[in-house]
Amino acid sequence: MKRLGDFLNMESFDLALLEEVWSEQDFQHLRQKLLPTYPAAHYFRSGIIGSGLCVFSKHPIQEFTQHVYTLNGYPYMIHHGDWFCGKAVGLLVLHLSGLVLNVYVTHLHAEYNRQKDIYLTHRVAQAWELAQFIHHTSKKADVVLLCGDLNLHPKDLGCRLLKEWTGLHDAYLETRDFKGSEEGCTMVPENCYVNQRELEPFPFGIRIDYVLYKAVSGFYISCKTLRTTTGHDPHSGSPLSDHEALMATLCVRHSPPQHTPSPTHGPEGSQLISVLKEAWRELDLGVAQARWWATFASYVIGLGLLLLAFLCALAAGGGVREVAILLWTPSVGLLLGAGAVYLFHMQEAKGLSGARAELQHVLGRAREAQDSGPESQPALLLGQQEGDGTEEQ
Amino acid sequence: MKRLGDFLNMESFDLALLEEVWSEQDFQHLRQKLLPTYPAAHYFRSGIIGSGLCVFSKHPIQEFTQHVYTLNGYPYMIHHGDWFCGKAVGLLVLHLSGLVLNVYVTHLHAEYNRQKDIYLTHRVAQAWELAQFIHHTSKKADVVLLCGDLNLHPKDLGCRLLKEWTGLHDAYLETRDFKGSEEGCTMVPENCYVNQRELEPFPFGIRIDYVLYKAVSGFYISCKTLRTTTGHDPHSGSPLSDHEALMATLCVRHSPPQHTPSPTHGPEGSQLISVLKEAWRELDLGVAQARWWATFASYVIGLGLLLLAFLCALAAGGGVREVAILLWTPSVGLLLGAGAVYLFHMQEAKGLSGARAELQHVLGRAREAQDSGPESQPALLLGQQEGDGTEEQ
Repeated sequence: MKRLGDFLNMESFDLALLEEVWSEQDFQHLRQKLLPTYPAAHYFRSGIIGSGLCVFSKHPIQEFTQHVYTLNGYPYMIHHGDWFCGKAVGLLVLHLSGLVLNVYVTHLHAEYNRQKDIYLTHRVAQAWELAQFIHHTSKKADVVLLCGDLNLHPKDLGCRLLKEWTGLHDAYLETRDFKGSEEGCTMVPENCYVNQRELEPFPFGIRIDYVLYKAVSGFYISCKTLRTTTGHDPHSGSPLSDHEALMATLCVRHSPPQHTPSPTHGPEGSQLISVLKEAWRELDLGVAQARWWATFASYVIGLGLLLLAFLCALAAGGGVREVAILLWTPSVGLLLGAGAVYLFHMQEAKGLSGARAELQHVLGRAREAQDSGPESQPALLLGQQEGDGTEEQ
Repeated sequence: MKRLGDFLNMESFDLALLEEVWSEQDFQHLRQKLLPTYPAAHYFRSGIIGSGLCVFSKHPIQEFTQHVYTLNGYPYMIHHGDWFCGKAVGLLVLHLSGLVLNVYVTHLHAEYNRQKDIYLTHRVAQAWELAQFIHHTSKKADVVLLCGDLNLHPKDLGCRLLKEWTGLHDAYLETRDFKGSEEGCTMVPENCYVNQRELEPFPFGIRIDYVLYKAVSGFYISCKTLRTTTGHDPHSGSPLSDHEALMATLCVRHSPPQHTPSPTHGPEGSQLISVLKEAWRELDLGVAQARWWATFASYVIGLGLLLLAFLCALAAGGGVREVAILLWTPSVGLLLGAGAVYLFHMQEAKGLSGARAELQHVLGRAREAQDSGPESQPALLLGQQEGDGTEEQ
């Protein structure tokens, strides 16, 4: 923390967005240290441990708020701990040189096993919630900036969904001046805090931290330079974190509306539809799985109740009373445990089907726009990108 | 449900917003029945039981999303059940005659005992979250409409906070043409489903359901007529619900910016500051109380661990082995229960202090605006009302 504070003070960024600052004391320590350079700061509190998100800004923060993700892993996966953090997205509104800048900082659920990722559905649901939160809260912003640890590779469903639905651009793909780790990776094998075995399939490392941005029509935003650290502290030896830092210089200019950069890849409408479909299928699978677990738990509850009744009868009837009393504890435990699992997965199913319904609605609108001919198609996308969309009337 | 469907079909509103529709099957039944009159519908899914919120619209719904409240009562208050609902605010975006209309529907935590209201802090936190959600998602809306069961009396802190921070107006106070129950009450003693004893201190009943609205500068919104049911089905005998229905006819006109109705009461800035202060104090009290419970639970955990160690020693040492084994179950139960209480109240403290930090920031800005003279004061309020606020630069 001491060295991180020194580094941030020396670099004197306009804005520094941090994740995984789990201790509020660490934040308070940093805040004191950074006060002269970054007069504005905020720590986003949520969950049991905390979201870990905080921000330091050279410019006054006009407004802030946060949205805690509805789904965030499983409470019984204690060794993974994500559920206890209450992962969230934080929003800051800044007014810079007459521009309204909405800055989002987030940290999505970690991926512990890429081959058998039990958190995939939750991460897709989080990416959708994040995209919807940005979509609905940035309608009057001139510039939107999203930074954070998405725990998503660039081609992963969640990342594509987020970019397609919000229209955000990836600083790494857009900049002409990149310096740092190979392929822009933010978890690299050179970093001594990184589990080398997990990175085995990826010789250069993985890119899961992002700087994403967009500007509304009338403004043009570009990434002048993008730098990453490369597994070491930029000055002394050991790295400041297990993830590499991303440092971007962004440039915002006024521009006639038509100069807004057109999306880089292919026919946009069909791409949006295809990624929405894919996400819908993933959430649908998740709903089915959550319901399966809830049903399974309800059978266990039934079984536990039967067992308990049987034990009570045994104890009352005498004979093997001691055995009955001994077995009473585990069967009550089973009952309570199964009850908790049932409630949790019912809530998971509700959360996932809520997100699925939102996705389905957007999918329906995108299809309508596509069916009504290529003229109206850019309108939906422009509308979506600018948070308008009156064309659908 | 059958009679409710008939009623909604016959009245043929533009928009019908319902709360406490706990069963999705009921919603699906209504949806089928209302399809010809209300082609668009949505059910907001959340929590374990569900938010109970749904909407039927004659006009297409362009977009929708939802925000589940961070704090919503206590899971161990099973007989109250609010925690299990996952109470939320639902947002619909409609485009009507070239206007962007943001419609919010919500249901806040119930008040079970007004004299000793253990949910007061949570309801204030929910009112703040609701106000912030509206504030941040309605910045490009021309008209904002909030309907729902707030479980707040008109003068309650949560209600004042919501109205002061969003600039929403109360249809009942604004309309010149009201017909219905005495004083606009929405829970009246005439209703046979209402607990008469709870209403004893309020001879006419209580007003806890609202239609609130505002229009941005350039538009003018007024409530032409407001009607309520009066404890009976409008046609046959028994009422359709324990709450009276609110039916409003709203009129939106273009108007020069200066014709925007000025807030009805006194010096606005100081009123906002005073309600923010009051809410801050309430949340601060809540944080202290949540921390007290967490500390208490941690002591119980320590005690439970000691007891368990003692019982294990007793069992191992022989002698009163049977007693030790018998006591083992309740002490493990105590440990697990206290652990759950500890985690819950830690999360409560985090959630409350998150809301308190947001409040404090807004309070600071409002004070700055007041200090810098009466000229800039309306600017903050106008900015807040219109979701702008560049004047603070």
